[in-house]
Amino acid sequence: PLDGQVLLLQIRLLGEIGAEPEQDGRTRIALTDADKEGRDQLLRWMEALELDIRIDRIGNIFGTLRAEGDQQAPLMIGSHIDSVANAGALDGCYGVLAGLAVVRAFREAGVLPSRPITVAAFTNEEGVRYQPDMMGSLVHAGGLDVDLALNTPGTDGTRLGDELARIGYAGDLEPGSLVPHEYLELHIEQGPILEAEGVQIGVVENLQGISWQQVTVKGSANHAGTTPMHLRHDAASVAATAITHLRAIAVDGTLATVGCLRLEPNLINVIPRKAVFTVDLRDPDETRLQAAEKRLADILAHLAETEGIEIHSEQLVRFEPVVFDSDLASAIAASASRLGLSHRYMTSGAGHDAQMIARIAPAAMIFVPSQGGVSHNPREHTSDELLLAGADVLLDVVRQRLAR
Amino acid sequence: PLDGQVLLLQIRLLGEIGAEPEQDGRTRIALTDADKEGRDQLLRWMEALELDIRIDRIGNIFGTLRAEGDQQAPLMIGSHIDSVANAGALDGCYGVLAGLAVVRAFREAGVLPSRPITVAAFTNEEGVRYQPDMMGSLVHAGGLDVDLALNTPGTDGTRLGDELARIGYAGDLEPGSLVPHEYLELHIEQGPILEAEGVQIGVVENLQGISWQQVTVKGSANHAGTTPMHLRHDAASVAATAITHLRAIAVDGTLATVGCLRLEPNLINVIPRKAVFTVDLRDPDETRLQAAEKRLADILAHLAETEGIEIHSEQLVRFEPVVFDSDLASAIAASASRLGLSHRYMTSGAGHDAQMIARIAPAAMIFVPSQGGVSHNPREHTSDELLLAGADVLLDVVRQRLAR
Ligand SMILES: NC(=O)NCCC(=O)O
Ligand SMILES: NC(=O)NCCC(=O)O
Repeated sequence: PLDGQVLLLQIRLLGEIGAEPEQDGRTRIALTDADKEGRDQLLRWMEALELDIRIDRIGNIFGTLRAEGDQQAPLMIGSHIDSVANAGALDGCYGVLAGLAVVRAFREAGVLPSRPITVAAFTNEEGVRYQPDMMGSLVHAGGLDVDLALNTPGTDGTRLGDELARIGYAGDLEPGSLVPHEYLELHIEQGPILEAEGVQIGVVENLQGISWQQVTVKGSANHAGTTPMHLRHDAASVAATAITHLRAIAVDGTLATVGCLRLEPNLINVIPRKAVFTVDLRDPDETRLQAAEKRLADILAHLAETEGIEIHSEQLVRFEPVVFDSDLASAIAASASRLGLSHRYMTSGAGHDAQMIARIAPAAMIFVPSQGGVSHNPREHTSDELLLAGADVLLDVVRQRLAR
Repeated sequence: PLDGQVLLLQIRLLGEIGAEPEQDGRTRIALTDADKEGRDQLLRWMEALELDIRIDRIGNIFGTLRAEGDQQAPLMIGSHIDSVANAGALDGCYGVLAGLAVVRAFREAGVLPSRPITVAAFTNEEGVRYQPDMMGSLVHAGGLDVDLALNTPGTDGTRLGDELARIGYAGDLEPGSLVPHEYLELHIEQGPILEAEGVQIGVVENLQGISWQQVTVKGSANHAGTTPMHLRHDAASVAATAITHLRAIAVDGTLATVGCLRLEPNLINVIPRKAVFTVDLRDPDETRLQAAEKRLADILAHLAETEGIEIHSEQLVRFEPVVFDSDLASAIAASASRLGLSHRYMTSGAGHDAQMIARIAPAAMIFVPSQGGVSHNPREHTSDELLLAGADVLLDVVRQRLAR
């Protein structure tokens, strides 16, 4: 059985890296000093398990437990350890550390698996500093050229490759060298469904499409006290109208979020000359996602015309919905049943590394409930009992897959 | 007659201090290094005119040309040399440097005036870093305690008094020591009216009320991909709705502007937990201004209730409308007529130091047209001819007042 105490302790310890005591959360954004500290900790734990550690050119970390036989493609268990700002301790870390717990179970039983088990921590899953999100797994899956990825500019003016080298995680493994036989990812749901239904395990059979855009509204700066309302080209006012209209797009299962907004010159008595905001659109249905994108474009075009103002939109990220491997999903459901855990099939609202690896290998995900449906927030929480239930399912699925 | 070439040259030279060649504007925000440089330049010009220079505890600069007789209250000509970000070269500087041009005309004519003429440059008129705006003149007029003012926190976390001392302009004159007999301020209109009507000189008889508030919307951070729309407490979405409603407040002569807006955590895939924005409301009519404030409060209260979200508003600045001295305004109109310049009576949309000095002395203002009504923008412009026309009116009014 899985050693739950070590897993829970490691989650707590990793969660202390980048901690902000005043805010009660932690900020371990990709390729910052805090991310480096988290990576260093992860490597020490991998070394203690005597894993064969390899780091690729985009900074993905792979720790492999050798198999008894000869060279075979590994069963991979992955997720990420980077975070958003003021994050909880579970998003990503839970899946990586549960992977270590699975390996530890094999080590402690004194048996070598019938095929290698690789625990992967992918670079920059959150995508808050460098876009796109799920970047490390996307590069690994061949969906993004590694040199292009290394050249990504950050929201803070840095270049991804420079920051990766700076923190010492620019490895030499060519991305994509380690193609898994199958891929499993254990994650907190980050949404309210499992808790609301009182279900213990989510069997993730698909994942919604993600469209990220950056919208720039170009008005004209002028004096707030002297410019008649009808002569204004107020970028903030037009941006606010656009954002208000977004509510009408977010219907029938489409989600729409404006997470970032910035005004220029951002002074109290100056009509803003510029507003820049991001739009995150999601839908499990590609046709509906395209319709939402179309409606957004129409709203922006209409506003540009009626307000006599320049608006343009740049696509930052676009991922189509993903359907996971049904055989692997069934195996997860079977393991949950065997362990006496209630479960349901479900859609992932969040993007995950599994969606990228699904391009090159059969992949599926296991979810555990998120208390209050809260994530990307220091109050993100799942009970120890449910965290261990999820890890038990993961271990059981791994055992079943390796026993075949 | 007034030496126009020196005035135009000084406007250009002062406008080069804090210049940003890429943006084609200048940023000389109160009590920054650029403000210090501008002040140093102004002092050198005052010294060249052998003015008696005094600096008070809030950093207001007074340069006085002695009168022929004994001690009398001065005729004061004032404005400011601090700027917003990416500003034009005229806002404020024009009035101060025209004051020097008036003094220079007396110097060059070799006559001492019948009463002292004091040229004043007031600290922090723009109020973009430290609120309230018109701070130096407000302190001078006894409307704000100097020690309170020195304790003002900046938008950048600094303390006004520290920055004033740092740039070496914390004088020892007790504010309010120099009460003027009368006060005149020459300024660009910063709005479109004079140009639209083809009028050369604005005789400013009143100035609208100004209400600045900072609104904070407190939502709850959550994941953009997993949180159903109906379970969100999205601070950005609520702020956008509030800003959109502001258009309905800005009717019948009321102006409403949102110049600053900031989200937290401001990440692309996180529903914002907080939005902070400023509202600038103006109206020449106090009753209407109060009605607008009431409507804003109602909108915010209604949104807080319907969205189940906490919203609060903090008053940053509140100045009632000001009526200028009618006798002084008539004198301006008479001078414009005498010089063959077209003129009209008008209301100032912008706040000005004159509105504060009006509390302690008869005050009025002279406006010249702003090309395209543009200000707080590097494209702020007035032709040399009109700049000189305004200065000629100022000199003529000063001569008339001193001749009485
Ligand atoms: N799981 C997770 O929070 N991923 C970040 C990418 C996204 O879904 O926005
Ligand atoms: N004249 C001027 O721009 N003053 C700044 C204060 C304001 O009106 O916002």
